Amino acid sequence: MRARNLAVVLATIHRSGPHTRAALAERTGLTKTTVSSLVADLLEAGVVTESGAVRGGERGRPGVAVSLSGHRVAAMGLEINIDYLAACVVDLTRTVRLRRTRPADNRNSAPARILAELRDLVKETTAEAESAGLRVIGAALAVPGTVEGGVLRSAPHLGWRDVRVSGLVDVPFALDNEANLAALGELWFGSGANDFLYVSGEIGVGAGLVVEGDLFRGTFGLAGELGHVVVVPDGPDCRCGGRGCLEAYAGQDALLGELTSVRELVARLESGDPGAAQAVERAGHALGVALTSAVHLLDPGRIVLGGIFAPLFRWLAEPVSEELRARLGPMRGTPPALVVSGTGADAAVLGAAGLIIQRIIAEPAQLLGM
Amino acid sequence: MRARNLAVVLATIHRSGPHTRAALAERTGLTKTTVSSLVADLLEAGVVTESGAVRGGERGRPGVAVSLSGHRVAAMGLEINIDYLAACVVDLTRTVRLRRTRPADNRNSAPARILAELRDLVKETTAEAESAGLRVIGAALAVPGTVEGGVLRSAPHLGWRDVRVSGLVDVPFALDNEANLAALGELWFGSGANDFLYVSGEIGVGAGLVVEGDLFRGTFGLAGELGHVVVVPDGPDCRCGGRGCLEAYAGQDALLGELTSVRELVARLESGDPGAAQAVERAGHALGVALTSAVHLLDPGRIVLGGIFAPLFRWLAEPVSEELRARLGPMRGTPPALVVSGTGADAAVLGAAGLIIQRIIAEPAQLLGM
Repeated sequence: MRARNLAVVLATIHRSGPHTRAALAERTGLTKTTVSSLVADLLEAGVVTESGAVRGGERGRPGVAVSLSGHRVAAMGLEINIDYLAACVVDLTRTVRLRRTRPADNRNSAPARILAELRDLVKETTAEAESAGLRVIGAALAVPGTVEGGVLRSAPHLGWRDVRVSGLVDVPFALDNEANLAALGELWFGSGANDFLYVSGEIGVGAGLVVEGDLFRGTFGLAGELGHVVVVPDGPDCRCGGRGCLEAYAGQDALLGELTSVRELVARLESGDPGAAQAVERAGHALGVALTSAVHLLDPGRIVLGGIFAPLFRWLAEPVSEELRARLGPMRGTPPALVVSGTGADAAVLGAAGLIIQRIIAEPAQLLGM
Repeated sequence: MRARNLAVVLATIHRSGPHTRAALAERTGLTKTTVSSLVADLLEAGVVTESGAVRGGERGRPGVAVSLSGHRVAAMGLEINIDYLAACVVDLTRTVRLRRTRPADNRNSAPARILAELRDLVKETTAEAESAGLRVIGAALAVPGTVEGGVLRSAPHLGWRDVRVSGLVDVPFALDNEANLAALGELWFGSGANDFLYVSGEIGVGAGLVVEGDLFRGTFGLAGELGHVVVVPDGPDCRCGGRGCLEAYAGQDALLGELTSVRELVARLESGDPGAAQAVERAGHALGVALTSAVHLLDPGRIVLGGIFAPLFRWLAEPVSEELRARLGPMRGTPPALVVSGTGADAAVLGAAGLIIQRIIAEPAQLLGM
């Protein structure tokens, strides 16, 4: 019961901003004595802080306001990408306090080696967070593959299968798919929209659907695999074992061809290179076809292009929109708006940290050992 | 508060079967006096009934059991299909009490004429229900098109656009997409599974995803349009305005060709007609490709083939499974099981009635005017 009441008080402050104790009592229906005792515990745990006087909810009497504290408790986001490892630390107010990225070549790698490198990055980042007075009380890791029951089932680009990640951190830990976490990153750190399909362009292509602020995960947590939507039934073989998947047309390898980086591709596009323009247009049309199927099945509020699709948005938007208009227009009227992500390459690692912040707010007693 | 408590008591009986008043008090945390008064109202409204003695929850003392009543309150399901109008009456225990079907030719029809015919069917069915002692207190209508905000936006096979259905019944009324309601029909009147993608084969092809017993509706209620998933990007024009949609390969028109009915197609298949076998095999492969995309995006627990796909299941199952195994197998291991619907052609009309039953259970005070 006390655990539940702690969560109720914290959720109220999180949702509606600073409150006096009296206003908290009024809003939650708890007695003032109970609220005072809960707030004392939350202060002690470093979850909330007292700040300047605000008008209380009761008879307009000013009082000391209790608000979320950004000073002591924090969450760590981690990411294993094909080309890099990343870490970030986010405080309870969802302010990003640290970001660290290490270039790496993780293709067809040995899990143990990469996880050891990631452990180093965790130690370094934790130490930095501590020197800023922050205590990391949970961490989540984004991986470019399917996750089921806390196990990385299949990450074809890493060449990993059935990898159980443990011993990375000594705080509560979550493992999740990169596109899922990137969608949550966009939700919490991006445009502020509550209903969208986040499309994650990376070596692979993934997606995460957010409906009314909640991530849709499907039955086994495997929903949103946009990269393996069939674009051409007898198209080229895909690394997943299927054929003609979107990834074969719009994944990073298909987009880059002989080039070595997205930056190089953008430079070519800016200089009007016809080969580069053709590759992106081809990817855009394939993405438009796959998104037509996705809109029919998932019914998203809007479509957000993220990851490597963000810097390519200028060139991708037209072919994608053309397909959506032509294929969806007659039936749906206006197709969902197509917009560029506000979070860029950091979406997944931010979403990972945000997931832990969400859990702390939802279950403070459990995560803080109160 | 009383409305909420009525719902809590009714939900308990609905979920866990007959209860004594004492057991209801124990389970719900309400006082025995409150429970007795609520049960009196529910008895009066005909929602529950008293039956033989069962063991109470308290000290094993036997008492009179209160259970859902199938005798007085009922819901009506309605359906406008291309070839027929249908109605059914379902009582509170989800027993089907009446089914009526009228053959019709509703292609490119005038909404007013069809709705007048449906109104006749409603009157006839209501009268029959009344003569069986049942009071119909709500109705829902399944339509083969997209529904937004209570308006039928687009039903291309009927040739209807932006039709507002009103004055059909003088009880609370809901309008919903055929595939959504068929999925709910399968949930409540079919196999008993809680996680599946119901695929509705009709003139059009639709789908409804059920996850943990809840229908996934997307952002605007338009999710599950499997029939317009793109199978071949430059395939034939589809009635929706798109190209190469599943419906162009696996809708009823594509399956039947020159034939006039599914029954005729089945007879040809049974007699080994090579043209019929080829049409169904082609449809099956297209369905397998579209379902591959659907599994990647929606992550269903299993796939249930319903509507006209049910009598064709014997011939469809192999080509569909072949595509799913080849395309999904390497990434997912075993693809979702492919099974035949247990509800046949009645799925949508049963789901429509079931939807109203669900609302009565969830909000008895509102629907019963208590």
